Amino acid sequence: MTSPDSPFTRAEYARRIERVREAMAARGLDQLLITNASNIAYLTGYIGESAYVPQLLSVWLEADPQLHLRDMDVSGCLHTSYLASDRVVGYPEEWIGDPDRSAYSLILDAVRSSAVRRVGAELGEMTRDTLRIFESAFPADVLRDASGLVTWLRLVKSPAEIGLIRQAAQICDRAMQRAYEVVRPGVRECDAAAEVIAALVRGTEHFGGHFAYSPYMPSGSRTGTAHLTWTDRPYERDTSVNLEIGASRYGYTGALMRSISLGVPSDRLRRVHAATLEGAAAALEAMRPGTTCGEVAAAFGRVVSRHGFEKKSRCGYPIGIHWLEPTASLRIGDRTVLEPGMTFHLMLGMWIERDFGHVFSETVGVTESGAESMATLPRTLAIVA
Amino acid sequence: MTSPDSPFTRAEYARRIERVREAMAARGLDQLLITNASNIAYLTGYIGESAYVPQLLSVWLEADPQLHLRDMDVSGCLHTSYLASDRVVGYPEEWIGDPDRSAYSLILDAVRSSAVRRVGAELGEMTRDTLRIFESAFPADVLRDASGLVTWLRLVKSPAEIGLIRQAAQICDRAMQRAYEVVRPGVRECDAAAEVIAALVRGTEHFGGHFAYSPYMPSGSRTGTAHLTWTDRPYERDTSVNLEIGASRYGYTGALMRSISLGVPSDRLRRVHAATLEGAAAALEAMRPGTTCGEVAAAFGRVVSRHGFEKKSRCGYPIGIHWLEPTASLRIGDRTVLEPGMTFHLMLGMWIERDFGHVFSETVGVTESGAESMATLPRTLAIVA
Repeated sequence: MTSPDSPFTRAEYARRIERVREAMAARGLDQLLITNASNIAYLTGYIGESAYVPQLLSVWLEADPQLHLRDMDVSGCLHTSYLASDRVVGYPEEWIGDPDRSAYSLILDAVRSSAVRRVGAELGEMTRDTLRIFESAFPADVLRDASGLVTWLRLVKSPAEIGLIRQAAQICDRAMQRAYEVVRPGVRECDAAAEVIAALVRGTEHFGGHFAYSPYMPSGSRTGTAHLTWTDRPYERDTSVNLEIGASRYGYTGALMRSISLGVPSDRLRRVHAATLEGAAAALEAMRPGTTCGEVAAAFGRVVSRHGFEKKSRCGYPIGIHWLEPTASLRIGDRTVLEPGMTFHLMLGMWIERDFGHVFSETVGVTESGAESMATLPRTLAIVA
Repeated sequence: MTSPDSPFTRAEYARRIERVREAMAARGLDQLLITNASNIAYLTGYIGESAYVPQLLSVWLEADPQLHLRDMDVSGCLHTSYLASDRVVGYPEEWIGDPDRSAYSLILDAVRSSAVRRVGAELGEMTRDTLRIFESAFPADVLRDASGLVTWLRLVKSPAEIGLIRQAAQICDRAMQRAYEVVRPGVRECDAAAEVIAALVRGTEHFGGHFAYSPYMPSGSRTGTAHLTWTDRPYERDTSVNLEIGASRYGYTGALMRSISLGVPSDRLRRVHAATLEGAAAALEAMRPGTTCGEVAAAFGRVVSRHGFEKKSRCGYPIGIHWLEPTASLRIGDRTVLEPGMTFHLMLGMWIERDFGHVFSETVGVTESGAESMATLPRTLAIVA
């Protein structure tokens, strides 16, 4: 352990940096400027919620990485990162909230060196205003686009990372069981949400959640929606509720989706649940090293279409730091080849009508020989009344 | 009420759209393309959490606005927005998670018309990849930067908006009182966090919170940090805890910060608390129509410097939809003139040493004659043991 607040050894971070340097060398980069908050967390351990202001990690082929943060956040970094205090540089608070200038100017002045011939940066996801500062800070032949370089390296997880995601998935199991207890006709949705979120934060006797993700938990005709939270109205009898919850361990996320039937399930709810479960088994069966992401989605699609359903949306995405990783995608046509150590949110929700949907998901890991779900919750349709 | 899920009348939305059209006309714009999620919420009521994929609201001088969303989210919009169903257009799910193309191409094909001479868009905050799609979709003399146009209109709130922010502030008061009950030496930080967040979601008997903001609640030597959540270690005696919490009503946010002393407060904690309270009174006294944001910050700074403290960071920012609004800033030098109806998070946290800080904030509204805090919690330093 590098500090009481880090779940990873110093050696693990050194391996991550080494992989980044190999990728830099392969692209001829001498320096890499990282602005994506999840990538900064990956390479430093810093998980403060400060990405709404300028921040930047500079990685060189030789020298230790250097992180530039707002002054206010330097201390948060020193509590969570292995970086030595002289590798964490704060910029003055006067640069915050000033529409006429951006602290990126200051940061680039500090990290720029004329000795560096090729600088990579995550240009693709920068805002226009930030991009302009980068483009004016470097000659055109020096600055190169390195969008996705670090993000793709995160796709295959280490055993320690998988351990944290598994813990987060364990917390999700408990929180969903709490939902089965508290979601009841007549209970206000916000009161049930409070209990579920508390369970996600409380965690287990051995470890807690580190962040409160706001669940989606639409009910009734809102089950046709995917990204609404909850209301302050009471649940109604003979409806259903779709829960999507996530827990965090040091930023690493596990997620879980289940539908709950409030009373005797409708015929269509039973049918879509049965089709989804059969499809989930097929998707998990297909998920093994050497298969493509697209083939996993196709396996699910073939099963549910036999049952008369169609999943229009993709079947999931890589899950890791801060939930969704924007790289591979479990969608028809995605040719990313699965490898041991990849982790996915196998997301099998189907929003079938404007006023009706059913959800089911688990956090799964690709192993040497196949795939393993991290969820231990029974897959039967939860029925409460 | 336009629908059971909207807190605003149709007339209120019509006034907002009318103000946008006036600003468009003043800039010679025939069409405005809005991609900022909070601005979309402001003009439509849609508060689904879907901004991680392309979405766009088109406002014309004459025709009704039209919102383009991922297919999966159309239903969520129809449950929360006044827009008629033919004004909410879904794009196919195949466009999600595909690295080779962006749904913005499709959306711009749909909203583009050769009859429109000047199109404004929020170019400044777009990513490079999105910006390129916009720039190739329109001739250079057609596309204009309208960054901030809608965001600045949000600075002065309507009575209905202030009502929601006040409700959110009421929820914060309750949740902080819950913190005073559960934060205790020996209690795991995650267990206390669970109770505080549950209170933020549960709300009152009359209304609940609609989203779970993850509080910052560092303790001990972590009080020198601003943006860390909590650990799973127990609180220690003779330390302090800094809480920053927020509650949401239909996306509208109230926030509150307080420090809690676990045991007899240290001398420096008492001194910074006393200085902060005197400074807060001075800032609230300065805050009135006609004053600038910079003068409010200066009023606080003058008081705390007399006590030997310095607030390096700004004294707050506008608060509204989704917490922070990136417009005016309560910082030295900001010349924005206060007007009745503006709402601020008067954020008076001071991170004094790397291992020590004290926080205090309230959500305040500018009135016709001065400023009014929405917090009802006593300002005395909370001491628990």
